[in-house]
Amino acid sequence: MYIVMNRFQVAEGREEEFEEIWRTRDSYLHEVEGFQEFHLLRGDGGDFISHTTWEDKSAFDSWVGSESFHKAHARSSDTPPDLFTGPAKVSMYDVLLTQTK
Amino acid sequence: MYIVMNRFQVAEGREEEFEEIWRTRDSYLHEVEGFQEFHLLRGDGGDFISHTTWEDKSAFDSWVGSESFHKAHARSSDTPPDLFTGPAKVSMYDVLLTQTK
Repeated sequence: MYIVMNRFQVAEGREEEFEEIWRTRDSYLHEVEGFQEFHLLRGDGGDFISHTTWEDKSAFDSWVGSESFHKAHARSSDTPPDLFTGPAKVSMYDVLLTQTK
Repeated sequence: MYIVMNRFQVAEGREEEFEEIWRTRDSYLHEVEGFQEFHLLRGDGGDFISHTTWEDKSAFDSWVGSESFHKAHARSSDTPPDLFTGPAKVSMYDVLLTQTK
């Protein structure tokens, strides 16, 4: 299992607009092999994270090179740049241990 | 749904020891109402995160005040302080959107 988080620095007062973009986008993730789950998170510090879970690293890497990725990001040029106060930062995580209820 | 992440700054060369502590600890999480899932993550930047998923914020808050939390953290004084280069940092996240395969 592999988790990818993209941290966004959203400008103050633009949070609802940012959420709305995510609410209405077509991610095409349902058609992607090895994709497990997506969450949009809002942190207690006001930060936002797109959080995706993958079967393994290779599933994520394949997605980045895929037509689904291209389609999902084709509209990102429509996003007003002043929505953000800085660049997004991607971090990738290997899942070492898991415990479920 | 609510996600809590605790970021650990593990000293270089002590990573295996840190992982072993997590591998062998008894978290008592299985007995906690509203607990969903635990993962230990290792980031591409060498950082470690304990990542827990909860039904909602109130389930997490109840756990922090519970006997299970106390038992799970009773052994933390056994952890050598030089395992870390700085304090752990907890962040809490509301899950705004979810998409599953």
